Amino acid sequence: MQIIDGKKTASDIREELKSEINSLIQYGKKVPGLVAILVGEDPASQIYVKSKGRACEEIGMLHKTEILPESISEEKLLDLVNHYNNNDSYHGILVQLPLPKHINEDKIIESIKPEKDVDGFHPINVGRLVIGKDALRSCTPAGIQELLKRYHIETKGKHLVIVGRSNIVGKPIANIMVQKEEFANSIVTVCHSAAKDLSYFTKQADILIAAIGKPEFITGKMVKDNVVIIDVGINRVEDKTNKKGYKVLGDVKFDEVSKKCSYITPVPGGVGPMTIAMLLKNTFKAYQKLVNKNEL
Amino acid sequence: MQIIDGKKTASDIREELKSEINSLIQYGKKVPGLVAILVGEDPASQIYVKSKGRACEEIGMLHKTEILPESISEEKLLDLVNHYNNNDSYHGILVQLPLPKHINEDKIIESIKPEKDVDGFHPINVGRLVIGKDALRSCTPAGIQELLKRYHIETKGKHLVIVGRSNIVGKPIANIMVQKEEFANSIVTVCHSAAKDLSYFTKQADILIAAIGKPEFITGKMVKDNVVIIDVGINRVEDKTNKKGYKVLGDVKFDEVSKKCSYITPVPGGVGPMTIAMLLKNTFKAYQKLVNKNEL
Repeated sequence: MQIIDGKKTASDIREELKSEINSLIQYGKKVPGLVAILVGEDPASQIYVKSKGRACEEIGMLHKTEILPESISEEKLLDLVNHYNNNDSYHGILVQLPLPKHINEDKIIESIKPEKDVDGFHPINVGRLVIGKDALRSCTPAGIQELLKRYHIETKGKHLVIVGRSNIVGKPIANIMVQKEEFANSIVTVCHSAAKDLSYFTKQADILIAAIGKPEFITGKMVKDNVVIIDVGINRVEDKTNKKGYKVLGDVKFDEVSKKCSYITPVPGGVGPMTIAMLLKNTFKAYQKLVNKNEL
Repeated sequence: MQIIDGKKTASDIREELKSEINSLIQYGKKVPGLVAILVGEDPASQIYVKSKGRACEEIGMLHKTEILPESISEEKLLDLVNHYNNNDSYHGILVQLPLPKHINEDKIIESIKPEKDVDGFHPINVGRLVIGKDALRSCTPAGIQELLKRYHIETKGKHLVIVGRSNIVGKPIANIMVQKEEFANSIVTVCHSAAKDLSYFTKQADILIAAIGKPEFITGKMVKDNVVIIDVGINRVEDKTNKKGYKVLGDVKFDEVSKKCSYITPVPGGVGPMTIAMLLKNTFKAYQKLVNKNEL
């Protein structure tokens, strides 16, 4: 059994990007830039945005956080997005979700220029991904594919079973892994709460992606020997022995499943760290496309 | 075993639309309009466009076919699409594919106003479908769901296996049937040429959608008893006994499979006629949304 070390892989990706950005600086070129827009004071969102900023800093990427009051109007938020759509210093724009209820989230996401939509949430990027066109792909699913790639895990023709059908993990990873491309080309099953017997499907998996949001939901009995396990769950569970008062568990019962599988992503330190790494990679990709376009 | 009669269902849909349009006329309202743009002289495309026009006529829908020479420039075609984007009499625009090689198909499709994209090929419509937002859905997959609905076939929690992953059938029907909505909510497997043993998957299907493009590929041995069969294949096979010189076969070996299944769509007369019916339905839907928008 081998651990898929997402922390190390994410760090490798950051190093690669850092060295790319260093060469840009050396040649006197503009560096890629990411702007994060945060509305309101949700503590979790504040933490996420802060880590994204720190990650940019570490690799020499330009970054800025726009903090707006909870009460901001939809129109003003649209204006701000539009300002960055037309600002050549920022190649990636992310609007931290969730937004306050008086703001139409879909409208805001669709207002981001697709070429700068580094979260890959704009429907046009989702659609391009599905039909196999070049697109900014959303970060968590892209990070999962990157892990499979960097650990040389054979995916072609394998039965990849996804538990969960969210818009940020289940559906996009299904649409990525079914593509006729390297590190994909899998037979993909998406199962979810409507299944009478989930384990009928999970037991068939050569590669199992758990994205359910229920702590330790996938047990040893639910998987076959030598399965590859990608655990996307990040569940906080009360734990009085821990000084934080909680511990973080994945969707997979690690001690049982790790005895049967060939590879597994731990929680924490598996898929989690990949999300920000892929956000940086997306920003770099957006930068390259936008700069090449302007140079043509 | 029951035949799913697509010809009759399509005719029912046309009748429903006709009566809706009749009431519009009675109340002196504008009727929905569809414009088809055909470039070049591909005989198959000419036939398709002609049948679409005839179908519009039959139900009292305004329609127009723009026939352009093979040599038209991309720019001129974009201008024409844009003309209809801004023309209030036409609520649906379809550009018959394939286009000549000097024209970028993606660019043309993305130039259609998404609200008028009645083929549902614009990536923004594909993306909205995936994330469960209101969208114009592409006609063949929408027609498949409509057949399941009108025959009251239980789909919730059923294992729906799709063979084939094209952009016009396999991928969109997978993305529809996995949605948490009525007449969907299935456990969906997409299998394709990369599978070592396709029958391992097809045998599991409660509902099997065959969209491979190979005549009689799915045999009796490949399916389980009581399966529901949706055959999307339309394969011309040489047949000297037929005066046309060919016959049309589906992707499913009808005589074998029909003995085991609970429902089956025949070829011809199954999924085929639904495509144009759904195109009309999409145009009507686009009309309703555009007219409501203007009246607000």
